[in-house]
Amino acid sequence: MIERLAIIGVGLIGGSLAMALHKSHFVNEVIGFDLDNHQLRQAQNLGVLDQVASDPCEAVREADIVVLAVPVGAVESVCLHIRDCLQASTILTDVGSVKGGVIRAVKMGLGFLPENFVPAHPIAGKERSGVAAASADLFVGRKVIITPLSRTAGEAKERVRRLWEATGSRVEEMAVDHHDRVLAVTSHLPHLLAYTLVNSLVHLGEADEIFRYGAGGLRDFTRIASSDPIMWRDICLYNADSILEILDHFEADLHEVRQAIESSDGDAMLDIFQSAKTAREQFCS
Amino acid sequence: MIERLAIIGVGLIGGSLAMALHKSHFVNEVIGFDLDNHQLRQAQNLGVLDQVASDPCEAVREADIVVLAVPVGAVESVCLHIRDCLQASTILTDVGSVKGGVIRAVKMGLGFLPENFVPAHPIAGKERSGVAAASADLFVGRKVIITPLSRTAGEAKERVRRLWEATGSRVEEMAVDHHDRVLAVTSHLPHLLAYTLVNSLVHLGEADEIFRYGAGGLRDFTRIASSDPIMWRDICLYNADSILEILDHFEADLHEVRQAIESSDGDAMLDIFQSAKTAREQFCS
Repeated sequence: MIERLAIIGVGLIGGSLAMALHKSHFVNEVIGFDLDNHQLRQAQNLGVLDQVASDPCEAVREADIVVLAVPVGAVESVCLHIRDCLQASTILTDVGSVKGGVIRAVKMGLGFLPENFVPAHPIAGKERSGVAAASADLFVGRKVIITPLSRTAGEAKERVRRLWEATGSRVEEMAVDHHDRVLAVTSHLPHLLAYTLVNSLVHLGEADEIFRYGAGGLRDFTRIASSDPIMWRDICLYNADSILEILDHFEADLHEVRQAIESSDGDAMLDIFQSAKTAREQFCS
Repeated sequence: MIERLAIIGVGLIGGSLAMALHKSHFVNEVIGFDLDNHQLRQAQNLGVLDQVASDPCEAVREADIVVLAVPVGAVESVCLHIRDCLQASTILTDVGSVKGGVIRAVKMGLGFLPENFVPAHPIAGKERSGVAAASADLFVGRKVIITPLSRTAGEAKERVRRLWEATGSRVEEMAVDHHDRVLAVTSHLPHLLAYTLVNSLVHLGEADEIFRYGAGGLRDFTRIASSDPIMWRDICLYNADSILEILDHFEADLHEVRQAIESSDGDAMLDIFQSAKTAREQFCS
């Protein structure tokens, strides 16, 4: 049970977290701040927040736990703003899709890495963003990965774990670098491919007709291209190394497909398609 | 209303067509043939077929309409088998995802292009294949593209149109080359990307963990990688030119994304992601 939770950045994730914790009665009071005043008022009107702060400092000053739910690129700036009002006893956590970059940003912004900082990443989302898309059930059955540092206090880690468990999610621990590599593969690359595919369709012209004739496959495949561009810019900036590594693999594998098509090598195609089908059915059963 | 319909290839598409036409009472009798004896018996046991033929010739001999529902690469061979038993008055149609290649295959197999041949392509499917996955509702609300040739008889075209309309689908006409380019973009390339992504994940190792941490996005994105490899090999072989053309565009666009990441160019990333998001929302609203 948390007496006072502060959420900086009241969008889809921050808003859904507040709603989930209210619903499970895990929190008594949620105070929020967002640079976007419209989002903030909307969050208050929707009952997502109990209190609206006029600046990040006011939000965090008396909080038991502070959740940074801003795009990864805004973490350093938020930390600069709160460095003088964050109490040593307050637990700090975040929701970023990149962990190494966020940890560096927190260190830069605060000037040090507090032992009460617990990096976290709920693997949940929607292609819609903003608090209007928030839902108390967004995290039910989803995974939340926490990547505690060697200096992280055990008590802080346990409280962040219980906070996420109260949303209905399952919490797992992972090393920072491992998290960033796994996410580059499972999430960051697929988003880049979806964005790129949509742009290729548009560059070809007749995008209207193309989407009209696209069966369910195309819609499924490109759904994630409706995700928030700023969030994804920041992820690419902050996880560039891992993303470029998996992009190397993908481009090499795509080149193999191209060569099979160019040389009309049906057996090579069959190998490629069959191994993918087998793997997907094995792992996504 | 059709008295006797012959379906060569009783898989997902052939089976679903038979079921849909039975359901709408548009056909009196469906006779089927499949090289896979197990599929054929299953189709009969499921009530999909009224009669099972022992060879393609027997199936088509007294049919009013013959539907070739085999992978594109099997069309020529089926046509060779039926050339001596297909009556001139019988309407011939197909369901292939490639039209130019199918038309050439029919001409090679039969020795000429009958005026009663109406190339057709229902834009519907599932990642599961085989008659066990067939459903009478597969085509409801979906598009069927017919690509009649200049020599195609108007009466044949109208009967094929009515056949597909009886399944609940909407029929549209398109030129052969245009169909093959549009489908390369909307369907063939996305399938290749999904197959390639799954293979890249597997090549990285730890595929089990990777799929475990993949959120809904990864599942949606790779669903089509469970499609039938033989069908997709044939599509790549028979629509190679159009696929390679769109692959050129895609690789160039992906290279632009890579360059933006390599040079930490956040503005370029934002342009790329924002234009894709805008386009998708405009066309998939």
